[in-house]
Amino acid sequence: MTEATSLSDFEIFFSPSTVAVLGASQDPSKYGNSCIRSLLTSGFPGRIYPINPHLKEVLSLRAYPALDAVPEAKIDLAIIVLPSTALVQALGDCARKGVRGAVIISAGFKEAEAKEGAELQKQLAVVANESGIKIIGPNTFGYINPPAHLNASFTPYFSGLPAGPLALLSQSGGVCHYLLPSCLNETIGFRLVVGLGNRANLDFADWLPVLAGDHQVRAIMMYIEGVDDPRSLVEAASRVTPLKPVVAYKVGRGSTVAKASISHTGSLAGSYAIYQGAFRQAGIISVSSMVEMFDAAKALALQPPLKGSRVAVASTVAGPGLIASDIIETGGLKMATFCPSTQAKIDGIIAPIVARRNPVDLGLIATREDLCLAVLEAILSDNGVDALLTCWAYVHEAYAMPAEGLAALARKYAKPVVVSMGYPQGSWWQKAKVILESNCIPVYPTPERAAAAVLALARYGKIWQRKIPVLKD
Amino acid sequence: MTEATSLSDFEIFFSPSTVAVLGASQDPSKYGNSCIRSLLTSGFPGRIYPINPHLKEVLSLRAYPALDAVPEAKIDLAIIVLPSTALVQALGDCARKGVRGAVIISAGFKEAEAKEGAELQKQLAVVANESGIKIIGPNTFGYINPPAHLNASFTPYFSGLPAGPLALLSQSGGVCHYLLPSCLNETIGFRLVVGLGNRANLDFADWLPVLAGDHQVRAIMMYIEGVDDPRSLVEAASRVTPLKPVVAYKVGRGSTVAKASISHTGSLAGSYAIYQGAFRQAGIISVSSMVEMFDAAKALALQPPLKGSRVAVASTVAGPGLIASDIIETGGLKMATFCPSTQAKIDGIIAPIVARRNPVDLGLIATREDLCLAVLEAILSDNGVDALLTCWAYVHEAYAMPAEGLAALARKYAKPVVVSMGYPQGSWWQKAKVILESNCIPVYPTPERAAAAVLALARYGKIWQRKIPVLKD
Repeated sequence: MTEATSLSDFEIFFSPSTVAVLGASQDPSKYGNSCIRSLLTSGFPGRIYPINPHLKEVLSLRAYPALDAVPEAKIDLAIIVLPSTALVQALGDCARKGVRGAVIISAGFKEAEAKEGAELQKQLAVVANESGIKIIGPNTFGYINPPAHLNASFTPYFSGLPAGPLALLSQSGGVCHYLLPSCLNETIGFRLVVGLGNRANLDFADWLPVLAGDHQVRAIMMYIEGVDDPRSLVEAASRVTPLKPVVAYKVGRGSTVAKASISHTGSLAGSYAIYQGAFRQAGIISVSSMVEMFDAAKALALQPPLKGSRVAVASTVAGPGLIASDIIETGGLKMATFCPSTQAKIDGIIAPIVARRNPVDLGLIATREDLCLAVLEAILSDNGVDALLTCWAYVHEAYAMPAEGLAALARKYAKPVVVSMGYPQGSWWQKAKVILESNCIPVYPTPERAAAAVLALARYGKIWQRKIPVLKD
Repeated sequence: MTEATSLSDFEIFFSPSTVAVLGASQDPSKYGNSCIRSLLTSGFPGRIYPINPHLKEVLSLRAYPALDAVPEAKIDLAIIVLPSTALVQALGDCARKGVRGAVIISAGFKEAEAKEGAELQKQLAVVANESGIKIIGPNTFGYINPPAHLNASFTPYFSGLPAGPLALLSQSGGVCHYLLPSCLNETIGFRLVVGLGNRANLDFADWLPVLAGDHQVRAIMMYIEGVDDPRSLVEAASRVTPLKPVVAYKVGRGSTVAKASISHTGSLAGSYAIYQGAFRQAGIISVSSMVEMFDAAKALALQPPLKGSRVAVASTVAGPGLIASDIIETGGLKMATFCPSTQAKIDGIIAPIVARRNPVDLGLIATREDLCLAVLEAILSDNGVDALLTCWAYVHEAYAMPAEGLAALARKYAKPVVVSMGYPQGSWWQKAKVILESNCIPVYPTPERAAAAVLALARYGKIWQRKIPVLKD
């Protein structure tokens, strides 16, 4: 965060009362139109002012020829969709109207081939900093704040994003357009999604303390191509990671990305290896795909971190249990050894024709909710078990999926529980998934992804323990 | 394949006229019931005979007290859901009734803790081999043959699996119950899914030549925990891979799986590293998750293998284009350099405010189908380009997704084309995905998965070139 910035400066992005769209359009193929549709469909409770010298009305909203024609003493937030060359003047207009936050969709700045772009961005930052205007962008798709019913992006369907404990800072709007569609049907949701774009005066390092200080945020994701000042990012992250988990997906292993990301959001990608080292030092959990980033953040937002490294696996189908065990072991964790009394309880319930040691095969009792829960309770009550990963595969209607019971066990024993479920859409397990996730148990569609989530919980366990002294058991 | 086995012996699994279910049940929670539901819901055109000494009718089908009471001269296929101890006698009954293929669902054989299981399985194999009965199982969920409308598994919803060019041999039923639900809505489908179970007398090595010889099969997947005779698997695969791509997902990196898979399907997992070396030698494409296995097989079934290593990436969103490029490069392929005339064509269409070299940013023209296709044609017509990976992100209705046009270009230039698409369910792009895949262009939900599919096409390109001499360009 620059010296002149404090947390309260960001308040304007969280609850603006008035939003103006500079460059509003009647053409549905233009961002000046889709931005207004986004605001409308998100149910934004404040007032929306389309600005365009040639229009009287946009999408049934009264339009104004210029910002100073709007009958409000001040405007909180400006979404700007003007040509890049008009931006410096537009920001001046914003300053005069008391605007304190701007979302600059316009491209053609530091990322452009032509050198004028970089110069233009510099000028933009100077005007903004002098006027105390915080900028998201330029060259951004915008941001979304679901709890505030505020979709300040050019993408109307992002209005359907559920509210929740996740935050995403993305240097690419495209990554959001791949990741967020699948999140529309998730039980878990977002506190904030920000497309950082060219980061004229707000970078990852500026946003991290804001998200750390927001009580709704429980896990932070970052998609990073490269930043101009990696040191400040690492310093900011170091202060955040003892409090909240931070997951980063950094591209740039190959040489093309290092070159190309300059032209994408005008930044140096830098050495992938150097970033990875810095991430480790800062307690950032590094991942290597957008799905892995989301999966890790979901687990970290819902479940406590692992206190040890001993994992139990129980599965209604043996193969996926083996797959999960494989990832647990190769990821540096241990398959828990049950104590004799736990093993005796399990052996009393499951016949000796399937595997009863860790990983436990629940196949023979897969239609008996009570027996499955008895086995899972035996496992969770074992002091030698630090976490439970359990896999469930749907065969037919009579197959048990004791969502409520499993949620109660997770609460009772306060150990991390992660679930994977294979089932066809339309089966009653779809509801079981919602019940589990509403009870803070993350559910994944494959054992591989569930096991990777357990690894993320273990990685954060280590980060968390090294920062904050905790009493030994 | 054992000496006594020939391809025609497998015909019985592809088009049986009569199927008996030994151990039929009226209880919907039992496999003896769900197996019959599977047969009924798949629309099996042959005759179904439930066998149970205590029932007159099961699911409106007339039941018979014993196999020899069925008024048919012979029965082709038997699905057996009896206790393991009744199996040897049941197989004897089958032999007398002319049965030539048996699906043995029953568990409690080589995989059981008790030693009697292994002995029982040996007896089973002896009786089966003497009678010329081919066994799928024991300890299997069954098999599915969608083109024959035959769901011979205990899982009724597998009847919804589409027919197509994929084949899956799985040592785990559980893996099928995770992988196949998502396949119910895929455009691409299956020729055959076989749960191998304990492999009493049919192993991977026996099935591979059968699938290689079936003209409907275009890509083969194997999920492997471990086999008793890895050499025969590798030998069989070596003969198949020059003709058809074989993708294998082998678990067992960790020590637990090595131990546990003995009790799962009664096999030795063996050293993971040794398997990997043997796979390479045999031209088997090794993957490390079930999703990666499916993604690779889908690309390999639909697209030609890469003839070179130079890949072009074009994306309507820069970030995902960078992600894909990163995977292409770190996976050992090269980012193509466009020839001057190609670059001039692209530069004539896209303004210099975004990246126009590989990876190409289509963002500025993302609402213009004609311009996008002109850029893609320029790329595909470049002799320095061996494959195209193209990423599309949906923003609003006006965004182009030229599915038909892209399909025509792929046909015209006969180079591998792989697509990733990010979009919300319910948007018109859902239909575009179907159009693309119906035209043999595989579509993936993330750039990472699309890039991994390109790597699989390149790996098979090398395997294919080393086996079959081809004319140089």
